[in-house]
Amino acid sequence: MTHEQAFTELETLLGPRFSRAMAERDLHGRNETWFPLTLPDAVAFPETTEEVSAILRICHAHDVPVTPWGAASSLEGHALAIKGGVSLDMTRMDQIVEVRPEDMLVVVQPGVTREALNTDLRATGLFFPVDPGANASLGGMAATRASGTTTVRYGSMRDNVLALEVVLADGAVIRTGSRAAKSAAGYDLTALMLGSEGTLGIITELTLRLHGQPEAISAAVCAFDSLEAAVEAVQMTIQMGIPMARIEFVDEQVARVFNAANGTELPEKPHLMVEFHGSDASTAEDAERFGAVVEEMGGAGFAWAKTPEERNRLWKMRHGAYPACLASRPGCMGLVTDICVPISRLAEAVAETRADIVAEGLVGPILGHVGDGNFHAILVLDRDTPQELDRAKWVASRLAERALRMGGTVTGEHGVGMGKRKYMEAEHGPGWQVMGAIKSALDPKGILNPGKLVP
Amino acid sequence: MTHEQAFTELETLLGPRFSRAMAERDLHGRNETWFPLTLPDAVAFPETTEEVSAILRICHAHDVPVTPWGAASSLEGHALAIKGGVSLDMTRMDQIVEVRPEDMLVVVQPGVTREALNTDLRATGLFFPVDPGANASLGGMAATRASGTTTVRYGSMRDNVLALEVVLADGAVIRTGSRAAKSAAGYDLTALMLGSEGTLGIITELTLRLHGQPEAISAAVCAFDSLEAAVEAVQMTIQMGIPMARIEFVDEQVARVFNAANGTELPEKPHLMVEFHGSDASTAEDAERFGAVVEEMGGAGFAWAKTPEERNRLWKMRHGAYPACLASRPGCMGLVTDICVPISRLAEAVAETRADIVAEGLVGPILGHVGDGNFHAILVLDRDTPQELDRAKWVASRLAERALRMGGTVTGEHGVGMGKRKYMEAEHGPGWQVMGAIKSALDPKGILNPGKLVP
Ligand SMILES: Cc1cc2nc3c(=O)[nH]c(=O)nc-3n(C[C@H](O)[C@H](O)[C@H](O)COP(=O)(O)OP(=O)(O)OC[C@H]3O[C@@H](n4cnc5c(N)ncnc54)[C@H](O)[C@@H]3O)c2cc1C
Ligand SMILES: Cc1cc2nc3c(=O)[nH]c(=O)nc-3n(C[C@H](O)[C@H](O)[C@H](O)COP(=O)(O)OP(=O)(O)OC[C@H]3O[C@@H](n4cnc5c(N)ncnc54)[C@H](O)[C@@H]3O)c2cc1C
Repeated sequence: MTHEQAFTELETLLGPRFSRAMAERDLHGRNETWFPLTLPDAVAFPETTEEVSAILRICHAHDVPVTPWGAASSLEGHALAIKGGVSLDMTRMDQIVEVRPEDMLVVVQPGVTREALNTDLRATGLFFPVDPGANASLGGMAATRASGTTTVRYGSMRDNVLALEVVLADGAVIRTGSRAAKSAAGYDLTALMLGSEGTLGIITELTLRLHGQPEAISAAVCAFDSLEAAVEAVQMTIQMGIPMARIEFVDEQVARVFNAANGTELPEKPHLMVEFHGSDASTAEDAERFGAVVEEMGGAGFAWAKTPEERNRLWKMRHGAYPACLASRPGCMGLVTDICVPISRLAEAVAETRADIVAEGLVGPILGHVGDGNFHAILVLDRDTPQELDRAKWVASRLAERALRMGGTVTGEHGVGMGKRKYMEAEHGPGWQVMGAIKSALDPKGILNPGKLVP
Repeated sequence: MTHEQAFTELETLLGPRFSRAMAERDLHGRNETWFPLTLPDAVAFPETTEEVSAILRICHAHDVPVTPWGAASSLEGHALAIKGGVSLDMTRMDQIVEVRPEDMLVVVQPGVTREALNTDLRATGLFFPVDPGANASLGGMAATRASGTTTVRYGSMRDNVLALEVVLADGAVIRTGSRAAKSAAGYDLTALMLGSEGTLGIITELTLRLHGQPEAISAAVCAFDSLEAAVEAVQMTIQMGIPMARIEFVDEQVARVFNAANGTELPEKPHLMVEFHGSDASTAEDAERFGAVVEEMGGAGFAWAKTPEERNRLWKMRHGAYPACLASRPGCMGLVTDICVPISRLAEAVAETRADIVAEGLVGPILGHVGDGNFHAILVLDRDTPQELDRAKWVASRLAERALRMGGTVTGEHGVGMGKRKYMEAEHGPGWQVMGAIKSALDPKGILNPGKLVP
């Protein structure tokens, strides 16, 4: 396939912001996990919606694949241009367009990262809650329907995107949603774009829902004798309606990794890390009720993070779990699993997963956003022992089957990318063909992130 | 158009549950508001998914339109078979399939009504929150992406449907979503079906998210001197992060209607009706903070509904507003508007609407789910004075323009049906054509609720 004519036009359009240099292609051919280097033919760096539209018009006319690129923190090879063509790097579209505290919303370009956004919002008393472990771009987070530690309270990207501007395959620009809190005006195109992983359109602007910074916050970490006890404590907390802002599980291996990476002295046991948001009185009440649950489940070493600094250290440690796990076995790469099950099946799902990892002789700490029934095994693999990757893929496929058998999903938050595509038919049945029909309707030439997600 | 061959096959399939009798056609040709009688050619009453699938296969083969029918409480003529064909009455599919308290979810057939569901759930300590004023069917509520008085706290149908079973135009059966709390596994077909108003598929089963009945509830009603003061109190409450479970506005005309219909003695002023859910301590705290807001805005006559009976009376009165307004002018029909605007524009939007209604000399009490920025004017029209309907349509079109000018939506919750289709292009621009492309991809023959929603 030669795309010379299109590339000439793109060069004219973008000048030095269109690159075929090996250094750029190499940078845009890498990924966070175990997928091999996959070079795009070229990289484009648009700065405006108009440029994105012009790029798409050119690529559409010449059948050139276009694969959007955010912060490249996705874990299933989502942003790799597996059919070549253009890697569309959105990082220069990084402006915060408008903050409207009176409507608790913000308008951003897709290249803004979640950390940059919250830094910018600090003075307003508002924040944006969705916090994947990486400092992802909001465009990428929308495209993968990301979630995070606070999803149990504030929802995922599905719940926090009010409106989008999207450039379609042929360059047409549409706006979905509005600034109203809700709408019943026809098909929910916003929701359709969320999680579409760059296969239906390029997100060029997002209107996001903000939340008030809570008046009072209390956070704590506590240890349990078994993973079952920890998970049962989560189930009880949910059933009692104690309103958690965060409830994270880490197993004894993660506790060990935390100690090594952060100099902490956590017992090498399963832990829950929790946080409550509200008023002084309500967080005190929540903490007390949660304390009773922990006691009933034999939890111990209940340590409260009292100051903002202690809390920041706690969540920084949690968000740093993936690099810390990788660092615990130098020179290794990761394969991160990501299933989500009904909460009643969580303990069973985690225990079976642990058994599989042990049976295969792999290194695989387990942690997760357990308030949502979502957990990950971080399989830490020796690059020079290919059998480890094979065994990890086997464990991952068993996890996928387990999730479906339990009425859950093969991906709670990371998305499909390359790694999960093989499970789509099992998860969706004939619904997967419906996704394909929608893809064909919106991108008949199949130029947007081809080879991903749909049949 | 003759559909005889299909009707013969449907008769064979359904026996007496397929009817061409005028009485049934007449029943299924009526609607809640001002749209004229619109007879379907026949009515089918399926009892299983398999029957729905078989009906669709027959109608698809013979190009017979199929328009689903739930509780027929929709307000824009949604369920009228404007191209004839079969009215698909879902009311016999009214089984609660499975209650899973441990996963806080329930599986229901589409004909179950929201009241029947909550009656059934009472013993579990759980409830389903979405509560349109009518006792709608859950299938219809999903199909219109309905919301209600508790949406400000618990979300709308968009937030409370986990999974669906849907029969497509050609009779194929798909399942969307799962029992997990979240998923990133590809396009969000659940969200796409919600709000599709029977134009993309027939919902034959829903998996719904349940919520714990709050430990403590406090509710109150209070009067304000002006609508601006009432609405400003709402804005302040939201900005202060006081967690309302309900916050409803009714204007002085509704207060008068309430007094006439319920024997209450509310001052003839704008009112807010509020409710807080939580623990004893937290609801007391919320109520105190809200009380301070009301005082600041000059609110008065703050009456707390202390017992469950008082609370039930309060919300029954609110839910009965529409029939009470109609009854206030005997023999009249209604045209109900339904815009939703960013919260900062709410006072202005309500005030301008009031002015329009006065200028046109119409009767039009105003009320709404103001915590979401959503409000309705109930235009009460004399059937024998056609000019009133014309003037009401003019007021409604001004409302739609106002909503869009303010960055909102022409329908916050009622949906598109026949009445709002003319505003779709203005609201969605080229996005409306995208909706059309999706419709064509899923229902190429256009047999599902034809003439509605899409281009
Ligand atoms: C340490 C670590 C922890 C993580 N923790 C979490 C977690 O807790 N929760 C979670 O959900 N994920 C998590 N992830 C995964 C990852 O951060 C998320 O998937 C994130 O949403 C990806 O955003 P990104 O900007 O990096 O997107 P990329 O990786 O650049 O792209 C992701 C996909 O979106 C597409 N895309 C990017 N930008 C656009 C755009 N503007 N328009 C259309 N499509 C676009 C790409 O083509 C690709 O298909 C974690 C990853 C790491 C490395
Ligand atoms: C007094 C009153 C108060 C109201 N208050 C509210 C309110 O607060 N909030 C709100 O959102 N609405 C409100 N409404 C409007 C109405 O109750 C909602 O739109 C409701 O969701 C309609 O449900 P239904 O079962 O009556 O559906 P119907 O009116 O029977 O049908 C609505 C649409 O859904 C389709 N449909 C029905 N069943 C299915 C199915 N199984 N599969 C696919 N499509 C289907 C129909 O074809 C039609 O297009 C109110 C109405 C009244 C009369």
